[in-house]
Amino acid sequence: MIIVMSPRATAAQLQHVIERIEALGYHAHVIHGSERNVVGAVGDERGKFQLQSLESLPGVDSVVPILKPYKLASKEVKAEKSIITVGHVKIGGPRLVVMAGPCSVESREQVMETAEVVKRAGAQILRGGAYKPRTSPYSFQGMEEEGLKLLAEAREATGLPIITEVMNPREIEIIERYTDIIQIGARNVQNFSLLKEVGQCRKPIFLKRGMSTTISEFLLSAEYILSQGNRDVILCERGIRTFETATRNTLDLSAIPVLQGETHLPVVVDPSHATGHWRLVPPMAKAAVAAGADGLMIEVHPHPEEALSDGPQALKPERFIHLMEELRRFAEVAGRTL
Amino acid sequence: MIIVMSPRATAAQLQHVIERIEALGYHAHVIHGSERNVVGAVGDERGKFQLQSLESLPGVDSVVPILKPYKLASKEVKAEKSIITVGHVKIGGPRLVVMAGPCSVESREQVMETAEVVKRAGAQILRGGAYKPRTSPYSFQGMEEEGLKLLAEAREATGLPIITEVMNPREIEIIERYTDIIQIGARNVQNFSLLKEVGQCRKPIFLKRGMSTTISEFLLSAEYILSQGNRDVILCERGIRTFETATRNTLDLSAIPVLQGETHLPVVVDPSHATGHWRLVPPMAKAAVAAGADGLMIEVHPHPEEALSDGPQALKPERFIHLMEELRRFAEVAGRTL
Amino acid sequence: MIIVMSPRATAAQLQHVIERIEALGYHAHVIHGSERNVVGAVGDERGKFQLQSLESLPGVDSVVPILKPYKLASKEVKAEKSIITVGHVKIGGPRLVVMAGPCSVESREQVMETAEVVKRAGAQILRGGAYKPRTSPYSFQGMEEEGLKLLAEAREATGLPIITEVMNPREIEIIERYTDIIQIGARNVQNFSLLKEVGQCRKPIFLKRGMSTTISEFLLSAEYILSQGNRDVILCERGIRTFETATRNTLDLSAIPVLQGETHLPVVVDPSHATGHWRLVPPMAKAAVAAGADGLMIEVHPHPEEALSDGPQALKPERFIHLMEELRRFAEVAGRTL
Amino acid sequence: MIIVMSPRATAAQLQHVIERIEALGYHAHVIHGSERNVVGAVGDERGKFQLQSLESLPGVDSVVPILKPYKLASKEVKAEKSIITVGHVKIGGPRLVVMAGPCSVESREQVMETAEVVKRAGAQILRGGAYKPRTSPYSFQGMEEEGLKLLAEAREATGLPIITEVMNPREIEIIERYTDIIQIGARNVQNFSLLKEVGQCRKPIFLKRGMSTTISEFLLSAEYILSQGNRDVILCERGIRTFETATRNTLDLSAIPVLQGETHLPVVVDPSHATGHWRLVPPMAKAAVAAGADGLMIEVHPHPEEALSDGPQALKPERFIHLMEELRRFAEVAGRTL
Repeated sequence: MIIVMSPRATAAQLQHVIERIEALGYHAHVIHGSERNVVGAVGDERGKFQLQSLESLPGVDSVVPILKPYKLASKEVKAEKSIITVGHVKIGGPRLVVMAGPCSVESREQVMETAEVVKRAGAQILRGGAYKPRTSPYSFQGMEEEGLKLLAEAREATGLPIITEVMNPREIEIIERYTDIIQIGARNVQNFSLLKEVGQCRKPIFLKRGMSTTISEFLLSAEYILSQGNRDVILCERGIRTFETATRNTLDLSAIPVLQGETHLPVVVDPSHATGHWRLVPPMAKAAVAAGADGLMIEVHPHPEEALSDGPQALKPERFIHLMEELRRFAEVAGRTL
Repeated sequence: MIIVMSPRATAAQLQHVIERIEALGYHAHVIHGSERNVVGAVGDERGKFQLQSLESLPGVDSVVPILKPYKLASKEVKAEKSIITVGHVKIGGPRLVVMAGPCSVESREQVMETAEVVKRAGAQILRGGAYKPRTSPYSFQGMEEEGLKLLAEAREATGLPIITEVMNPREIEIIERYTDIIQIGARNVQNFSLLKEVGQCRKPIFLKRGMSTTISEFLLSAEYILSQGNRDVILCERGIRTFETATRNTLDLSAIPVLQGETHLPVVVDPSHATGHWRLVPPMAKAAVAAGADGLMIEVHPHPEEALSDGPQALKPERFIHLMEELRRFAEVAGRTL
Repeated sequence: MIIVMSPRATAAQLQHVIERIEALGYHAHVIHGSERNVVGAVGDERGKFQLQSLESLPGVDSVVPILKPYKLASKEVKAEKSIITVGHVKIGGPRLVVMAGPCSVESREQVMETAEVVKRAGAQILRGGAYKPRTSPYSFQGMEEEGLKLLAEAREATGLPIITEVMNPREIEIIERYTDIIQIGARNVQNFSLLKEVGQCRKPIFLKRGMSTTISEFLLSAEYILSQGNRDVILCERGIRTFETATRNTLDLSAIPVLQGETHLPVVVDPSHATGHWRLVPPMAKAAVAAGADGLMIEVHPHPEEALSDGPQALKPERFIHLMEELRRFAEVAGRTL
Repeated sequence: MIIVMSPRATAAQLQHVIERIEALGYHAHVIHGSERNVVGAVGDERGKFQLQSLESLPGVDSVVPILKPYKLASKEVKAEKSIITVGHVKIGGPRLVVMAGPCSVESREQVMETAEVVKRAGAQILRGGAYKPRTSPYSFQGMEEEGLKLLAEAREATGLPIITEVMNPREIEIIERYTDIIQIGARNVQNFSLLKEVGQCRKPIFLKRGMSTTISEFLLSAEYILSQGNRDVILCERGIRTFETATRNTLDLSAIPVLQGETHLPVVVDPSHATGHWRLVPPMAKAAVAAGADGLMIEVHPHPEEALSDGPQALKPERFIHLMEELRRFAEVAGRTL
């Protein structure tokens, strides 16, 4: 932590800052500058809230953190990439993993039909929402346990592991009973109570970046899960909120190499929620593979114009099959398989 | 809902859109334009997810909603302003309500000392966090029930009603037992499970706008609570996330008149979290009063440089007392009392 | 400038960084941390581009500037507030200055009628655009010199100094001949060629913050003008671009106290462009006064529904007159006059 | 244009809106809704400022544009893709075009060395700035005409056409004399005076998207150039400003397919300015190719740690050569050559 003093700070103010730093168990190291002094607080700054409060002291201009605030998520603690195993599927290894399926589970026909298509196209995991976070209370809220049963039935029929979202700590138990991967949605990325509770689950956690979550905050949310003992965390970039309205969100693909420089956890991209328009999904899926993503989450619906949620962003079966063929070629050039 | 057809749409595509609109129970009304046609879908569009999915149909360019998506929160359903009563305090009436206290409850001394100051200065409600949403799992997480007891003790001593935050549906019961107002923090504004559960509480809910929540989404989050039967919702603007880094967030004071044009619910402003720096709190508090806010939430700490969370944004007691005097004069000019 | 080394940096890499720092004329000062080292480069970092390039060296993680990048705009160089004189009007002094008038000059009747109203209401400066920056080439582009003549005629008739915008360096000469204050619009805030040229004018410059300009960049744009010898710069906050669409821009009122902490230059607020809706102008104008602004720029049009640009945000004459009366009371409480 | 009436609008207010629409030369078409009425204004809405001003009329809630505001840039006017020819190079055709070189021209050695490398690696155009837009007036401002001469010399030596930026209308003439493509930088994307003047040049214009420019506004800026008669406009996505600070800007790759759906103009991506870090340039360059870009602009510098501007984002020669080899394989899979 670097404490930047004001140009008008007195010697007594500087001395007081030094004393507070040392009282908090850090070593203070002053650099006398041409216009102002700065003080380095040497020590592990991760329990840093108290150092930050030094900003309130007279003569202090600002407090600048130097160390990364996350530990278990960082490559400094674990240099080799994490590979997360779900049945026969390995996420984070050389083979790219595609998770596909409908936004919401709506009926047995819809789930079974989509699961068959998804499997035939070469996707390895089936996605589908049973408990749905909807902006409006008047929108379809999901089939709940009935939906979980349909997903399990589709797994039975196709052999594909399933992923579904949890929103409420009270529902973790029932969801964990059915699903293979537990998804935390973008709106819950800083629902710290939920993060702590899924950190105690034995199933892998798929954590979506929030609409206004910085990469550093995103890794701290992963750290919440990891610090509870669950080491199987998959990160998902799904678009951030910006001023641009031509797309539902702005897909931040540079998050892939930035994350890969910081963490050992696998990084998956969801081009469906990021763009909100099915026409934009194929180019963004290919771009994600080229940028080094470990996998993709893609929405597929047999009849998008009748979907109960997010119809405009779902691919029809034949388009998804075609996309998978294209992706295979991009994966190869990127040094991966699919 | 207005369905905008593509300039190249065929007559058959237009016909299919009309049929789908009518199949969903709406009346279709075509306007033949100079370059493209648009179709109005007449009817209550609030259960609108299905109309939105028409965007997937061939020949459709976009789907534009016309009606506001919220009902119970809107002035169209309830034109007169809602006044929410907490003990002797009325929120939303002619008298401005100031809620003040520490970010986190840290000790009996800290809470009792702050409560006394806050009361003496003329604030009407005591704030303090016992369960804390912290970006890092290594930061202080709050005193939990112990903290609730200290808040209750401070209420006993001063007569001030208290407000504290709930993060986990499992903790609603215990928090409701102690507190007078239940706060939903910015990070949980779209934690729909939590919103539904507090919608069944009998205590008023203080709902903070999220860092990237539009005003329309914010009102839909209020609608979640209202639609469960709890009509006592207080809205709080606390800054949104932008590119600017000189302040912790960007306080969106224009949200006050925009909200007041849309909803009957009271609107409170939190300049402490919005700016992140105590020096900026007084000017923004005055500006909020001038812009028509119904109240303020302000952080006060007897020793900000030792605070376990958010020290830089807390006012010292003497500065808070001075600010309250200034605010009284602004309130008067704004046609309110304090 | 603080150079943060990577945790894996070698001693040789650290040594090379030290040598480069000293070769650039700075003094290098190393702090050996618990996990990584940091190097302070002591000296005036304002010609800093070369230090920033050290980020390319092996073993360097990041380069963090410490000093403010602006000089002449800063309070460190000039502690007392600048007061800018335009005829009888002083901007930055105890009396608030209101600049009002139409977005565009459209006709003699419109300008003369508005100028009379504006003067009667107590505004001190008349605004009006003759050269208009319009997003579309098919929108009205302004009356050009004809418009300047009408503004001058209105000044003649009312005694009000005038302010108008310049977009092209080639038009500076003609605009300077007519106007009392030269306005640089938000879209030209980083049009450095234009800034340099108006820096050589003898008339005061009214510089609007851009839609995505940080406060630090805004002051650097002012620095461009100041460094050419023109010391009369007035800063104007007019809203920044965010994800919120309920308002045209998001008015960042916290910029007022932030700027006042950094610079001696006067700060004016434009609530018309910030909000884009006339209903929101009065509350935001009052809030700006409460937050400490030195003045306001407000659009007034006798017939907003017929305006050739920005009609929705213009106040009708009677509403403007009423607002000025209200503002007078807020100014008084804020310790100012109007 | 759709005029949305307020739910409380009277019949007289509706009638007045209809009259105003017809007075402006449009045909009014009313849809009577369940809660509110909407009025379609049928006709070419591109000279639309006056319709927008209807928002000021009593009883009007909002005005929603339906038609795209640009004409010449749109695929509706020109369906086939534009191919822009610069010497032997074709931009927008099947072969991808890479423009590479230093941020700033700094010396003969630097330019010549870089030009050789860039050519050897297979890039087709040499970039280099002679007039530099720098945030600070104290940063290196470019070698000006001396720099143009060095670029021309490098063209002589290598046969590569050159591209360089213009900032001031007064410098168009001299720059046009030396360069093959004229670049308009991100900060000047809404410098409408400059756009109009380069619209009269005979050289192709390379237009960078601004940091906070929507795609629709970006196309309107292109329209400014096109409407002056210059049909050779190349669009460049170079990152937009968001809350994320891990990268210099957020590269919006979804802009590629969105633009390709709207316009016939070629789309190039600049991953160097978008990310600000050389490590992120290769993955983002590959992603841009996968997403369908027509070309790339990449910064290359023989000694990035000594660069006078933007050193951290420049690739060293050997890294650029390696990247070009990788890009060739991605181009092939994307159905292009390089």
